[in-house]
Amino acid sequence: MALINENFLKLKAGYLFPEIARRVKAFTEANPEGAARLIRCGIGDVTEALPEAVRYAMHEAVDEMGDRGTFKGYGPEQGYDFLRNAIADNDFKARGLEVSADEIFISDGSKCDTGNILDIFGAGNKIAITDPVYPVYVDTNVMIGNTGEADENGAYAGLTYLKCSPENGFVPDIPEEKVDLIYLCYPNNPTGAVATREQLTAWVAYARKHGSILLYDAAYEAFIQDESIPRSIYEIEGARECAIEFRSFSKNGGFTGVRCAFIVIPKTLLGYQKDGTAYPIHPLWSRRHSTKFNGASYIVQKGAEALYSDEGKSQIKALIEHYMGNAALLVEAVKAIGLPVFGGVNAPYVWVGTPNGLTSWQMFDKMLNEANVVITPGSGFGSAGEGYFRISAFNSRANVEEVCRRLAAL
Amino acid sequence: MALINENFLKLKAGYLFPEIARRVKAFTEANPEGAARLIRCGIGDVTEALPEAVRYAMHEAVDEMGDRGTFKGYGPEQGYDFLRNAIADNDFKARGLEVSADEIFISDGSKCDTGNILDIFGAGNKIAITDPVYPVYVDTNVMIGNTGEADENGAYAGLTYLKCSPENGFVPDIPEEKVDLIYLCYPNNPTGAVATREQLTAWVAYARKHGSILLYDAAYEAFIQDESIPRSIYEIEGARECAIEFRSFSKNGGFTGVRCAFIVIPKTLLGYQKDGTAYPIHPLWSRRHSTKFNGASYIVQKGAEALYSDEGKSQIKALIEHYMGNAALLVEAVKAIGLPVFGGVNAPYVWVGTPNGLTSWQMFDKMLNEANVVITPGSGFGSAGEGYFRISAFNSRANVEEVCRRLAAL
Repeated sequence: MALINENFLKLKAGYLFPEIARRVKAFTEANPEGAARLIRCGIGDVTEALPEAVRYAMHEAVDEMGDRGTFKGYGPEQGYDFLRNAIADNDFKARGLEVSADEIFISDGSKCDTGNILDIFGAGNKIAITDPVYPVYVDTNVMIGNTGEADENGAYAGLTYLKCSPENGFVPDIPEEKVDLIYLCYPNNPTGAVATREQLTAWVAYARKHGSILLYDAAYEAFIQDESIPRSIYEIEGARECAIEFRSFSKNGGFTGVRCAFIVIPKTLLGYQKDGTAYPIHPLWSRRHSTKFNGASYIVQKGAEALYSDEGKSQIKALIEHYMGNAALLVEAVKAIGLPVFGGVNAPYVWVGTPNGLTSWQMFDKMLNEANVVITPGSGFGSAGEGYFRISAFNSRANVEEVCRRLAAL
Repeated sequence: MALINENFLKLKAGYLFPEIARRVKAFTEANPEGAARLIRCGIGDVTEALPEAVRYAMHEAVDEMGDRGTFKGYGPEQGYDFLRNAIADNDFKARGLEVSADEIFISDGSKCDTGNILDIFGAGNKIAITDPVYPVYVDTNVMIGNTGEADENGAYAGLTYLKCSPENGFVPDIPEEKVDLIYLCYPNNPTGAVATREQLTAWVAYARKHGSILLYDAAYEAFIQDESIPRSIYEIEGARECAIEFRSFSKNGGFTGVRCAFIVIPKTLLGYQKDGTAYPIHPLWSRRHSTKFNGASYIVQKGAEALYSDEGKSQIKALIEHYMGNAALLVEAVKAIGLPVFGGVNAPYVWVGTPNGLTSWQMFDKMLNEANVVITPGSGFGSAGEGYFRISAFNSRANVEEVCRRLAAL
């Protein structure tokens, strides 16, 4: 009798974005007119063309596959050296950070990486996540059995929720209790907040004191405008002893449909066996990656490498400027109608307080039905997100300007 | 204190193919002359150019990404309908099999799928694997804690090994004990054996009797030449109630470096909660796939779709004919030197008994040092593989002819 993993039965409703898709589909089927003027600012998905440098490189790679002399079969599971070196040189060494190419593991996406990372950690870890938070962190912990059941607010027994609010600038306070794995995402999805050097220094000190590991999601680092804000956790002294960093080409290079990301595991990072014996994390992930993954597509890796060329860098810069220009317009429009607004300055997300005590999903339905704009309900990111909604700046300029007009008219 | 998953510490040595790579590297560094004439028939990796139809479709898809009007961001996690429909129509409906498009989940590879599938099954399942076997099935069960420690032969406590030998045609006998999850791979890697309709019918009957699930890996179905051999487990009546099928574009379409595969989970397939309550498997995998995966690359999926065009089909046919022509030559060459030979008729692998009581790794070293040919030691696939080695037919014709000459000269 094949037994299922009953932890899956603890999961609440759908994953957030499929639920949004369901409501939008119902709306568009019932309202052809509203459907025609619908603007999607819900899911944080890029909208602009893939950079030319990337397309050029991918065309070349496809052609290489057409000649048996240059054909590429299985590649190294950890990624091709050409890409690992480009990342190490440009994202780390050029910024004075000590991350070597063989500490970088290429994958097909950060969603996979942030979910799969739990494979190498044992049962019995105390897990801390911010609230609100990217739902994947929570759901993957539920699936693997690191939690109990959810309460009526959707909070899972056994997880430590680190509340984020305007009072702490949406960066959680250091907890009094001991936790073992801590998910931090800055620039933050969904709040658009950033963490300062001082705040991250405190987290690194906490993790080192307790032998904890920070799972640092820096998928949005390219959107940071303020030079004083760290773009990598490894800008903090001691982070190589306590942090894994997740990076992605999805949002800087427009790779959400192309699929490429990477993870940094310093060789100096240790975990522990139950008896207290230290054990390095790097070989564990290397083994996991070699056994359950077969490398990202060669063609995709060649595309990602092109992002580090001069053309690629300037094309990324143009994309970031475009999206951050959108964010600035949205922030202004929300301010003008008097709603509390956060983020949108060093991140492509604008985090807004709902008016008149509306719940997040009520606001979602109101925006959908009255403004024909899809936003993301804050409560979908955790109970501390209740009373907020997220507007994504990933869109065309014309659409964003129209969203601003509709917000004014609401 | 971050606890590691100590199950990883039970894993023996390296994963097979990295270990082969290590020995080959040591040899080539020490023997420049041998290195120059080295022929690789070890890892089962395709060598011929990617079909033109695929490259054409991928070029088009890259161009689509360059226009914001046709740009594709996040796709459906389960795969694009264009590909799911092409698979359902061509691989199943056209053969009279009942598999619908929404029972097909597109991924970036069968190695990922066969490893990740364990996420949805609970602890306490009795796992059966054939011996010899593709190492990923074993290692992923070790990692997730479904086994105890390995003994001196590398056999893990708690796993049920189903011995495959010339006596049973390398298709395991139905076990007397009850097992819950059974990995079957036909055409088989590494032995090149196929399972007959009668043999698969017996397995389906066994699984249905015990509420077990067959994890049926059909990655090599395209190589079947004998029309009486089932290409899909769903050719067996009742399989929709007891089997998951894994398929890949790696070996038929030459996608080992492109990365695309799929898995079929019939909606009629049930697993069980501990209390005996039945629960459908399809929504569990759908949830897993939505939460821990973000869809295969759009460009790659467009390439895979092209394999179902008339041009794509005829280009696959030519590739299969090429590799199976190689296999026939290898079988003849091995027969000529009087070694026991299996496979190579409906599969691209030739499975050979070692001469003079050599162990598999001794034969590996002999072939490497004396013939400068890389093969795969049978014992790397399990203890029942001791005394055998695998020759892969994935190579150029010229290389295979040269391997045949070197075998004759050994």
